Amino acid sequence: MRGAVLYGPRDVRFEERETPKVIKPTDAIIRISATCVCGSDLWPYRGIQPVAQPTPMGHEYCGIVEEVGSAVKSVKPGQFVIGSFFASDNTCLICQIGYQSSCQHAEFVGTAQAPVLRVPLADGTLVPTPEVPSQDLVPNLLTLSDVMGTAWFAADAANVKPGSTAAVVGDGAVGLLAVLSAKQMGAERIIVMSRHESRQKLAREFGATDIVTERGDEGVERIKQLTNGIGADSVLECVGTQQSMMQAIQSTRRGGYVGYVGVPHGVELNGEQLFFAHVHLHGGPAPVRRYLPDLIKLVWDRKINPGKVFDMTLPLDQVAQAYRAMDERRAIKTLLRP
Amino acid sequence: MRGAVLYGPRDVRFEERETPKVIKPTDAIIRISATCVCGSDLWPYRGIQPVAQPTPMGHEYCGIVEEVGSAVKSVKPGQFVIGSFFASDNTCLICQIGYQSSCQHAEFVGTAQAPVLRVPLADGTLVPTPEVPSQDLVPNLLTLSDVMGTAWFAADAANVKPGSTAAVVGDGAVGLLAVLSAKQMGAERIIVMSRHESRQKLAREFGATDIVTERGDEGVERIKQLTNGIGADSVLECVGTQQSMMQAIQSTRRGGYVGYVGVPHGVELNGEQLFFAHVHLHGGPAPVRRYLPDLIKLVWDRKINPGKVFDMTLPLDQVAQAYRAMDERRAIKTLLRP
Repeated sequence: MRGAVLYGPRDVRFEERETPKVIKPTDAIIRISATCVCGSDLWPYRGIQPVAQPTPMGHEYCGIVEEVGSAVKSVKPGQFVIGSFFASDNTCLICQIGYQSSCQHAEFVGTAQAPVLRVPLADGTLVPTPEVPSQDLVPNLLTLSDVMGTAWFAADAANVKPGSTAAVVGDGAVGLLAVLSAKQMGAERIIVMSRHESRQKLAREFGATDIVTERGDEGVERIKQLTNGIGADSVLECVGTQQSMMQAIQSTRRGGYVGYVGVPHGVELNGEQLFFAHVHLHGGPAPVRRYLPDLIKLVWDRKINPGKVFDMTLPLDQVAQAYRAMDERRAIKTLLRP
Repeated sequence: MRGAVLYGPRDVRFEERETPKVIKPTDAIIRISATCVCGSDLWPYRGIQPVAQPTPMGHEYCGIVEEVGSAVKSVKPGQFVIGSFFASDNTCLICQIGYQSSCQHAEFVGTAQAPVLRVPLADGTLVPTPEVPSQDLVPNLLTLSDVMGTAWFAADAANVKPGSTAAVVGDGAVGLLAVLSAKQMGAERIIVMSRHESRQKLAREFGATDIVTERGDEGVERIKQLTNGIGADSVLECVGTQQSMMQAIQSTRRGGYVGYVGVPHGVELNGEQLFFAHVHLHGGPAPVRRYLPDLIKLVWDRKINPGKVFDMTLPLDQVAQAYRAMDERRAIKTLLRP
């Protein structure tokens, strides 16, 4: 088969890779229905996180089970499944607590920009849909593999509650779905920091009540103006830079909550500053597996349409174009069809 | 009157200071029954946090109200009262949420190592006891002004729940009372990191089930051994150094909680490390005012004896000795009687 391989900065190739097969009895092999490019793929694509060797790419996936190892019990060939970017056994002490992305046997699933994928720990990782979905549901279901689950975690970590005021830092796909998540969790006021008209539009559609175009100290000031001078109850950080992290912390009211899901790059937090900011801070790789059953139900019942973040669809063999469009911010998120 | 003044590193003098009087109608004047030296007083005492000029010291206090301003309604002369080290109006939006130490009108109360003290915002700051307490209760009540309230906040911020496993970093007075707090909140297992026999003894008396004498990576390893290899549910950081903070974060299980109350000095947290640690982080200046009514009741009903951390008592005029004893770790905490 052919799949995406990153060679170095801005050099993604679509080339021959070994077709995956069952290696361990706990594996499943999936024929990918749709995959996509993640904002976090752009870190190595841009060379900010260097790759040591040609690296297969992709960690968001859904599709039809083709084959399972002898120990797999909960999914079977023919089923449509979604899984997290971290395979998890879903039985260890950490999984039981709901932090499957830190499972004691976690394995990163990093070769999903391809027609066929091996998923380890299939029983603990994959969740089947009630039946094979109609085509229009596939983009929505695909988002649950990472971007929507990650946004949901941001809102959960930021303790969004009915009636609360939430602010979202970042208008990428995660940021936009963080708006949708905050809305679902009952936030009354949802402020999104965005300078891009098309993204502002989608943010409003997802439930944003206010747009802040200022950044840095001015952005913080603007959020305070909108929140009785004290800052938001919940701030959802969806970028991962020093500036975005500080913007999130400073926009939060004392005693409020920052949920951060942007993978931090070069972020250093000053202890004293954090101490007097008086915020709750929680984040990390989203435990997508925990949320999958509920999120699948929301999509299946057509309550949410997270797939709207895909504003570009390309055949998988044009994966290099997909990266380029996102890098240049011409696309919010690109869906790839094998 | 005479009170404590810090001139520079290890130079505390007991000297003439102006006797406080009512300045604003919201003030109260208190005759101090007991005050003490705080672990955080040692930062400027040791020169780690320089003082620009001779600085009156002391922020832990309880005593009898002598006089109140014309606007004060909730306390009156003759009452025995306890207040936080941060005066608060207890009515602003932040106070209503329970973060009185970040009150929008907060004022630090920093001149308590003296016989008489002016407390601003008396209505929002001071809580009277049911009646004037017997002498043996005074040390217990004094701790509620800071050290016990701070320890309680550490346990609260670290989400200690019935049945949970808690670890305490630091065996100073706050650390020891963090053990007591975790016990009160129902922790089943309480691990304290301590190398000092007398402190270990008091920790056990307060409810510690395990003592870890190792520090750094070895200490983390030991805590993991005691917690099924995953780390503690709740870790209470009561020191404020880079080492203690990292020890706390690394000793916490994924998805667990770090409550940090040691005022950070030179602490820098790496964003990526924190992200993958997957912990909840909350701390800051303890909102003592929130806890005062409940803690007064616990002391009044003789359910807790936090005053046991005072292993030295001196007359106030020997305040310099009090600092020295704590600096040299000869005393856990020194009570001062005017």
